[in-house]
Amino acid sequence: MEKVGIVGGGSVGLLLASYLSKSGFHVTIYTKTDEQANKINKMGVTLESGMSLTRVSVKSVTFSKIKEFNDDILFLAVKQYNLNEVLSTLQNLKGKVSTVVFMQNGMSHIKDLNKLISKADNVYVGIVEHGALKKTPTDVKHTGIGVLKIGCYFQNENGNCPVHIWKRLSEVGFLTEVHDNWMEIMEKKLVVNGVINPLTAIYKVTNGSLLTNNYYFETMKLLFEEISSIYKCTEEDWQQIIEICHKTSQNRSSMLKDLEDGRTTEIEAITGVILDKAKKSGVHLPYNQFLYNSIKGMELQREEGGYE
Amino acid sequence: MEKVGIVGGGSVGLLLASYLSKSGFHVTIYTKTDEQANKINKMGVTLESGMSLTRVSVKSVTFSKIKEFNDDILFLAVKQYNLNEVLSTLQNLKGKVSTVVFMQNGMSHIKDLNKLISKADNVYVGIVEHGALKKTPTDVKHTGIGVLKIGCYFQNENGNCPVHIWKRLSEVGFLTEVHDNWMEIMEKKLVVNGVINPLTAIYKVTNGSLLTNNYYFETMKLLFEEISSIYKCTEEDWQQIIEICHKTSQNRSSMLKDLEDGRTTEIEAITGVILDKAKKSGVHLPYNQFLYNSIKGMELQREEGGYE
Repeated sequence: MEKVGIVGGGSVGLLLASYLSKSGFHVTIYTKTDEQANKINKMGVTLESGMSLTRVSVKSVTFSKIKEFNDDILFLAVKQYNLNEVLSTLQNLKGKVSTVVFMQNGMSHIKDLNKLISKADNVYVGIVEHGALKKTPTDVKHTGIGVLKIGCYFQNENGNCPVHIWKRLSEVGFLTEVHDNWMEIMEKKLVVNGVINPLTAIYKVTNGSLLTNNYYFETMKLLFEEISSIYKCTEEDWQQIIEICHKTSQNRSSMLKDLEDGRTTEIEAITGVILDKAKKSGVHLPYNQFLYNSIKGMELQREEGGYE
Repeated sequence: MEKVGIVGGGSVGLLLASYLSKSGFHVTIYTKTDEQANKINKMGVTLESGMSLTRVSVKSVTFSKIKEFNDDILFLAVKQYNLNEVLSTLQNLKGKVSTVVFMQNGMSHIKDLNKLISKADNVYVGIVEHGALKKTPTDVKHTGIGVLKIGCYFQNENGNCPVHIWKRLSEVGFLTEVHDNWMEIMEKKLVVNGVINPLTAIYKVTNGSLLTNNYYFETMKLLFEEISSIYKCTEEDWQQIIEICHKTSQNRSSMLKDLEDGRTTEIEAITGVILDKAKKSGVHLPYNQFLYNSIKGMELQREEGGYE
């Protein structure tokens, strides 16, 4: 059975690790800290899904300690703002890997996808439409059953889509599909995140409040219309955002949680990308600009100890 | 000595009452609740200014109980959103009053200034550039020594500017000046409030954070520029806003305090007026629109018990 590496011990990394391990692959999680690696080596990873708890045995190594590629397939499950550092390290490792999958949210990593084409036969992107919550360094909860959508960015003459991996993941309850129109899927997700994430973060409310509070709803509509002017959205896209707010009405968005828990947010990979695209077209997006500055300001305020 | 009435037992009402009483006038505060009126009648009003505490004896009557005008001069020290109700009552009282002074923040009350011209010989506006904090229903702190700027809106054939009142107020430490260009002064203050108040309220920060946090500073600049397009502001106006943030760096703006303490904010009288003016000129102000919707949404959220 192939060896699978996952860079990043966050919620998506742990979730993938547990399903891949359940699928029978030999999984190694490359963590940021020695502490988390030690815990995973000692206790494995525990997956909570619905009413069931599954503990799987997973190997773990601190990322900074690896010197060469040891896996056949490597998932990069780090946040966008840590990606550059991870890529620099990987570019200098000995050896090669068959497949790399970029698992970042947002779209700022699109420009980085070509950085490993000399190191991998296949470069994929993974668009995670599953919900996951990291409860401890070794415990993850599968909070939203969705789909992991896979897109092929690059394949060299030795390249070969590892279809069996997606198939095995789906079989053990982690639905995974390959899509040709992955760029479009990514943009649709970017629009959804660009609307829901900054607003819930700035108002400090659950997703459902954007529907029940008329003023917030109005703001959400104005923001969507502004983003639509760049991404050519349809009424259907708007209805989908409303549906997502309904379905996840009790959830706190990842951006809100990041702010609350003192982590850097993904504002660069979401609103930052929207603003960049608009700038290239010479269009000014004031709502997005305001939200971008505000979330960056809140990150700074929090670093200075003033976040309430 | 003339009898002076003050409608409203908030911070400005209590501040005015104590200085007017120190000046030797017979002062009556018309309160919203019987409870506050009883307390004031029993304990007087205590003014804290610098290191000194002064207790003055002031009469108080619940506003809803008055049937006729009993004073020579009447200050309307209620919030903009309570003004309509107060004016309806005053329009139906027996008798007349020599002078009425409208003490509201913002500019939404401009349209209401003519509603008492059949009841008063002089109608004035008062622009409060003093800081005041109501500590209890009978205790007020003079937190910022500034100027009360008075402007004459209307004077009939019997009208006569009560210059001696402004003079006496100034003598006891509450600087009061009459200005001809009161409309301009009011607009300048509106611009200052339109920039500082909504931003500090949405970010939940002291005024100084708008200067020290680069992202908030950038947002403040963009907001100022947008408002400038309507109110023809100058570089000097921008410098003044910066100076005010410096001088009041530790203060929480009234809008932030209103939200935190569960009161309605003055967003209608500030950002609402700016948006109305822009609308009449056919101009769209996205930053102001976003802030207006956001603060209104936060008021609603707080009513629903969700304000954090």
